[in-house]
Amino acid sequence: MKSFNDILSIVNASLEKLRWEKDPKGLYAPVEYTLGLGGKRIRPALTLMACNLFNVDLEPAIKPALGLEVFHNFTLLHDDIMDKADIRRGKPTVHKHWNENTAILSGDVMQILAYMLLSEAPQQHLKKVLDVFSKTAVEVCEGQQYDMEFESRDEVQPEEYLQMIRLKTAVLLGCALKIGAIIGGASEDDAHNLYEFGINMGLAFQLKDDLLDVYGDEATFGKKVGGDILCNKQTYLLIHAKGLAEGATKLKLQSWLTDVQTTPEMKIQGVTLIYNQLGVKKICEDAMTVHYEKAIAFLEKVSVIPFKKQELRKLAENLMFRND
Amino acid sequence: MKSFNDILSIVNASLEKLRWEKDPKGLYAPVEYTLGLGGKRIRPALTLMACNLFNVDLEPAIKPALGLEVFHNFTLLHDDIMDKADIRRGKPTVHKHWNENTAILSGDVMQILAYMLLSEAPQQHLKKVLDVFSKTAVEVCEGQQYDMEFESRDEVQPEEYLQMIRLKTAVLLGCALKIGAIIGGASEDDAHNLYEFGINMGLAFQLKDDLLDVYGDEATFGKKVGGDILCNKQTYLLIHAKGLAEGATKLKLQSWLTDVQTTPEMKIQGVTLIYNQLGVKKICEDAMTVHYEKAIAFLEKVSVIPFKKQELRKLAENLMFRND
Repeated sequence: MKSFNDILSIVNASLEKLRWEKDPKGLYAPVEYTLGLGGKRIRPALTLMACNLFNVDLEPAIKPALGLEVFHNFTLLHDDIMDKADIRRGKPTVHKHWNENTAILSGDVMQILAYMLLSEAPQQHLKKVLDVFSKTAVEVCEGQQYDMEFESRDEVQPEEYLQMIRLKTAVLLGCALKIGAIIGGASEDDAHNLYEFGINMGLAFQLKDDLLDVYGDEATFGKKVGGDILCNKQTYLLIHAKGLAEGATKLKLQSWLTDVQTTPEMKIQGVTLIYNQLGVKKICEDAMTVHYEKAIAFLEKVSVIPFKKQELRKLAENLMFRND
Repeated sequence: MKSFNDILSIVNASLEKLRWEKDPKGLYAPVEYTLGLGGKRIRPALTLMACNLFNVDLEPAIKPALGLEVFHNFTLLHDDIMDKADIRRGKPTVHKHWNENTAILSGDVMQILAYMLLSEAPQQHLKKVLDVFSKTAVEVCEGQQYDMEFESRDEVQPEEYLQMIRLKTAVLLGCALKIGAIIGGASEDDAHNLYEFGINMGLAFQLKDDLLDVYGDEATFGKKVGGDILCNKQTYLLIHAKGLAEGATKLKLQSWLTDVQTTPEMKIQGVTLIYNQLGVKKICEDAMTVHYEKAIAFLEKVSVIPFKKQELRKLAENLMFRND
């Protein structure tokens, strides 16, 4: 069994070997730039770890694993255009560094490059791998659509929010694990249980993200705390706060969401105070715990000895109890 | 052997059956809209015709054929954003009818839907089909990139232009034929010859487009003649005119390209006059003929009896001698 760090080294070394230093530079330079920005590389790592549960040979899973990372980065690239985001991982986004047309077209080519890498899955598993991937890729687009729609809606139900983050974030983690399992030769049941482990881990992961944005420690979090509050992002916290607030608190929350006169610091402080009064931090933590425990339960069902699953369990723990 | 019209009926009926009336509507309505705008449906028709050369059973080629049409429409959708085009096939483009974010995301999902359809190719041909398709899809992006770069360059060589239209337009026609041939069970050689038939037909097709924009009959052409001239589009005609013009003609051409005081009618008339003086119409027609004849030569090499190839030959003729 390989440790998470061993797996990550394989991912990084393999990703390093993929170069797109081709012409036209205007198309490929942004691809190199985007993939060079770093990131946790969680998705390809999950693919290799899942494969490793059933097989010592990881080689056949490497290219498909990288395909998932390329796909993930493609979605970030296009999402950044749609969200008009200027900064990604501390650097200018592609549409800022170059321009919007470049960002659209380089994203398009990345999606194809992702499929090229996925298509390197062993012949006997190819159709299954592609089916899982395409279904997931479509869902990720649906998630982004819902996310955008929510921003212009006044009221969003917590269940709708969970469904949105399931599509936008969780399914790709489930897919990464399932593809690794398939290539590793897992049974249908095991592949399914790993998929559900990923889904629930993904949900917990995103809820943790919502929490960190408000309650994170800026020094370790790596980005400014309160970003979601400043742009009125419909997070699990805000959605619940809107649903629970009554009377004066409701009016106060409403005024923080619409007041443009205030300073950023005051708004963050004010909204956080309301969150604390309404107890939405605990609601979010509880939901996170529910999904974290569901994830672990699915992992336990996977029919390999517990020792082999230690690394995945540790990874889930680390993601859940991380501070960044 | 099925006639072109029979093939087109199959394409249209099969395309009609694909519905994306799903949620979120904001994502899928533009997909339905785009595919409902019509078009020649040349690419899926080519796939089925190529398949039909080797096999009476077209069924296994239908979904992959439709995948190529979906992909083609995806490229038009994203190209229209990049080119800031307001109208496509007489209707508002998606980014005009909805907005740019919708056009980006719906295009992204169409690319995945295209891959889903391509992945329905028979198992034994799947890898080959995907390899041809992905290679082509990447080339189409490269072609679009060159096309955009040319618009901001003063000088483009005719060979560069031919390479650009090969990537942007011709390779997808070649790919459509090759995929049909592969699924039909053709030999490597036959698949290759059909690919080259498509490439050369595509080049001739685009040169014909350049000619029609200037010398087409508005009544049958369906769009306003002179559109390329008005936006200084780097066509084969303009590139050659720039290369050939000297002295007063050169100055005159330069003034037409930069003068914003003139009326559209005067500019079209003035530039066309220079084209006529320089004989670039004939240069373009000759290049078109060269590629048309190359196309036919490759078609002749395909090892099936001439009778079976009649429909493809007729189609190539019709595209070449069309007025719209």
